Amino acid sequence: MLSCVVLWSGRRGSRELPRLRPRVAPTSLTRVDFTELVPEPIAFLGQAAYIQLEAFENLARAVATAPSLGAKEGLSAAAGVALRKHHDLIAELRRSGVEPVEVMAPFAPATDRFREASVGADWYELLLGIYVTTGMLDGFFARLSEGLPNELADRVRRILAEEGASQVLRHELERAIAEQPGLADRLALWGRSLVGDTLLVARSALRAAEPSGRIDEDVEPVFTELIADHTRRMDALGLTA
Amino acid sequence: MLSCVVLWSGRRGSRELPRLRPRVAPTSLTRVDFTELVPEPIAFLGQAAYIQLEAFENLARAVATAPSLGAKEGLSAAAGVALRKHHDLIAELRRSGVEPVEVMAPFAPATDRFREASVGADWYELLLGIYVTTGMLDGFFARLSEGLPNELADRVRRILAEEGASQVLRHELERAIAEQPGLADRLALWGRSLVGDTLLVARSALRAAEPSGRIDEDVEPVFTELIADHTRRMDALGLTA
Repeated sequence: MLSCVVLWSGRRGSRELPRLRPRVAPTSLTRVDFTELVPEPIAFLGQAAYIQLEAFENLARAVATAPSLGAKEGLSAAAGVALRKHHDLIAELRRSGVEPVEVMAPFAPATDRFREASVGADWYELLLGIYVTTGMLDGFFARLSEGLPNELADRVRRILAEEGASQVLRHELERAIAEQPGLADRLALWGRSLVGDTLLVARSALRAAEPSGRIDEDVEPVFTELIADHTRRMDALGLTA
Repeated sequence: MLSCVVLWSGRRGSRELPRLRPRVAPTSLTRVDFTELVPEPIAFLGQAAYIQLEAFENLARAVATAPSLGAKEGLSAAAGVALRKHHDLIAELRRSGVEPVEVMAPFAPATDRFREASVGADWYELLLGIYVTTGMLDGFFARLSEGLPNELADRVRRILAEEGASQVLRHELERAIAEQPGLADRLALWGRSLVGDTLLVARSALRAAEPSGRIDEDVEPVFTELIADHTRRMDALGLTA
């Protein structure tokens, strides 16, 4: 059970690792009011759109390397959902009169590195990588979208709410874990190693959302909640987070 | 200018290479009446669906390896179209009460090999591979669908008619050819080398469509027309077919 609180004290973009000793247990926290965080709409849409594109790329890789046609078919539907979310967010950028490619560009290098780091050593690690990272980030961006202007918030909520890859990923991973002794332990370790990088992506989104432009201890509970979600998601697979 | 007539005389599945000396010029041919060919609907849908899935996989690979975000963005839309065609054809199989994965399975090995053979040595060859193979096969399956039962034929025509990858591929290839001396010659050779394999895929679809189950000289004009289409498509890029 991973139940760390993350402190982001580095103001110069230095990379902080999650502290592993909990200050407070996630269950004892008041739910964070995400509407206090006000994302800058264009940056929000650009980063969210690019993250969906990267999720699509990893899902497409999982389709291409699937060991069975049944798995390929299920994952292809999930890849389609990620791609649709990407294009719907792009459409929101166009509607705002900006060029999506220009808005996404600043987020590309870090997100590309993040995707490459979450690809893993084989198909199962790739699937868990998508499960963990899209699980945390989809939930995070959906909640962050609550602080957008009302109508945009509604549309973004609808875009992000579509059930994506988690069900098919859980299905394939559960089956593989049941069949392959030792896989659960390897995947548990792998899942844990992805948390830090995923939180850094979330952190970079908060930079643009926090009114003062600084990340301070007010947003700690945001990360604590993200990690609690992650733990629940790993539990669902029978994996120790 | 490649204007060969293809004779499929091998009845035992032996692989025939296109004859390179023309018997008749394509322009002198009467248009083939595709409605004389009656595809078996389930096999047609299964093969067409699997071919779209493979086209999607190659497009997704082109997205993941694109040298610019603009190219990535354009190709991602094309990948979405191929995936939608795949899923719409899958939906037609489900509507017929069959399990899509089972219907597609027999087509998977040959189509997988075909896709791997058309990937090419770099991003530009990958793009031309998609341009050439989807160009020929999309047109072929669209015309073959004319022989399906009426209502199904209408729905399949609508599914396959959606403008897919050709425009974005042409755009990216034209730009690259203009910028990189020597690329045109290399791509012309590469495009030519793909024709034989693509015709074999089309031929395997005709096996199920030709009433006698045999491929004989009646269907020669089908292939001649496919090659004429290919030549026009290469011409559009300024490449010698």
